[in-house]
Amino acid sequence: MREINNIVLIGAGNVATNLAIAFQSNGKKILQVISKNLDHAKLLADKVSANYTTILDEIINSADLYIISINDDAIINIASSLKIKNKLIVHTSGSIDMNVLQNASTNYGVFYPLQTFSKDTIVDFNNIPFCIEANTSENREELIELAQILSNDIREINSEERKIIHLAAVFACNFSNYMYLIAEEILSKHNLPFDILKQLINQTAFKVNNQNPENTQTGPAKRNDLELIEKHLTLLKETPAYYEIYKVITNNIVNKFHN
Amino acid sequence: MREINNIVLIGAGNVATNLAIAFQSNGKKILQVISKNLDHAKLLADKVSANYTTILDEIINSADLYIISINDDAIINIASSLKIKNKLIVHTSGSIDMNVLQNASTNYGVFYPLQTFSKDTIVDFNNIPFCIEANTSENREELIELAQILSNDIREINSEERKIIHLAAVFACNFSNYMYLIAEEILSKHNLPFDILKQLINQTAFKVNNQNPENTQTGPAKRNDLELIEKHLTLLKETPAYYEIYKVITNNIVNKFHN
Repeated sequence: MREINNIVLIGAGNVATNLAIAFQSNGKKILQVISKNLDHAKLLADKVSANYTTILDEIINSADLYIISINDDAIINIASSLKIKNKLIVHTSGSIDMNVLQNASTNYGVFYPLQTFSKDTIVDFNNIPFCIEANTSENREELIELAQILSNDIREINSEERKIIHLAAVFACNFSNYMYLIAEEILSKHNLPFDILKQLINQTAFKVNNQNPENTQTGPAKRNDLELIEKHLTLLKETPAYYEIYKVITNNIVNKFHN
Repeated sequence: MREINNIVLIGAGNVATNLAIAFQSNGKKILQVISKNLDHAKLLADKVSANYTTILDEIINSADLYIISINDDAIINIASSLKIKNKLIVHTSGSIDMNVLQNASTNYGVFYPLQTFSKDTIVDFNNIPFCIEANTSENREELIELAQILSNDIREINSEERKIIHLAAVFACNFSNYMYLIAEEILSKHNLPFDILKQLINQTAFKVNNQNPENTQTGPAKRNDLELIEKHLTLLKETPAYYEIYKVITNNIVNKFHN
C-alpha cells in the first residue's frame, strides 16, 4: 500500500483550511492550493507554504492525493472538468455521492470530517469522526491510514449513510445554532445579555454525550404546561417567525411525550 | 443583615435536589424537605440528613429561608395556602411572578438558578447564573449573599426580565435538545449511531461561548443551497413532523440571511 505524503487542495474554505493546517503539522506536504478566489488561495497557501493558483489547468500532477473541498454544487462541475487519470481524488462533502468523481480518475473516494469548521478557529481533529468511502479496498485503506494520522475515530460510511448522517447533523448543529440565534435576539431586544445562557447551552450539549436526548428533554412542552406555553406565545406575538417556530416545535414535543 | 443558615425545601425534584446538596456541602443546614410524594421527600431528605413530611401544616417554623421548588402551577397553590408570617420565602421558577408569594409572608423573593437540572447528575453551581429578586433591599442582600456561596455569577433580575430570559432558555436549551432528539431518531431509523454527532454538538455549543450565533450559523439554509434542501425534504417525507420542522426553520434561516 502506498503512503500519501503530497497533497493538492482544491478549495480554500473552512474545511480546506482546517485540513491543510492539520496535515502540515502532522508531516504531510501541501503542494498546491487551488481556488477560484485568488485571495483565499494565497491566504491558505501562505499558511502551509504551498503554491497556489486560480486556474484548474495549472494543477500539479505529482501529488499522491487531490482533495476537493468546496461547495456541493461546485464539486460536480469541478469533478467533470478535472482529469487526473489514476491519481487518488476525494471530496469532503457530507451530501454528495462518491460517484460524481468517477470521471475525474479511476481512483476516488470520500474523506468527510463530521464537524462544523471556521477559518478563524482551527480545530483539533483528534476526536472528530472521519467518514471514509472509496471505490476500491486499497484506496479505502490508504484513506483510513491518512485519517488515522489526524483522528482516532475513523468510520467506513457509504454514500447513502453519509447523506443520512449529514441530514441529522443539520438538525443537531445548524438548527440548534439557530435556536441559540433566536434566544440571542429575544434577549437583545430586551437589552438582556446572551452570556447568561452560556452555561445552559454548554450543559444541554454536554448531557447528550452520555444520555439519549429523549431522556434529557425538559421544559414546558415536555411537561405539557399549556398555561406557560400560552404565555410564551403571547410574548412572541410581535415576532411571527419565532412564534411559528415555537408553536411547531412545542406541538411536536407535546405529541411525542403526551400521545 | 441576618445570615441564612437553616433552610426548608418545599419540593424534592431536580432543582430542589441540586440546591439541597450544594447548600449542605457549603455548610448550610437543610432542616426539612416537604413533598407531596413521600418517596421523593424521603429520598432527598436522606441525602442531606433532613426531616421530611408530605404535610404542609407540619412545616418547621424555625428556618431562616423557605425555598419553594416545584412545578409552576403548584407554586401558586402552595403560596396561597402557606402562612409563615415574616420568614423569608423564595421560589426558584423562571416564569412565575415574585408577587405570588406576597400572601405567604411579608419577606419574599426569587432565587432562580439558570440551568437544566436532573437528579442523577449533580451540577457544580460555580458558574451558573443566579437571577435574584426580592421585595426589599435587605432581603435581596441576604439572597445575594447566599447565592454567592454557590456561584460567582449573581444577577439582579426583575420578574419581567426573568420571563424573557426563561423564554430564551426554552429556545437555547429545550428546543436545541429536541433538535438532538430528532437527529438521534433519524440516525437510529437507519441503524446509525448517535455518538457520531457528539463532537459536532459539543463544538456547536462551544462556539457560541465566544461568538454571536449569527456568526456561527452554517449549513444549507445559511448558504441558500436549495438543491440540498430539496434532497433533505425528500428524505424526510416519511416523517411529516420532522419534514415540517425542517421546512419552517430552514425558511426562517433563508429569510434571515438572504432577504
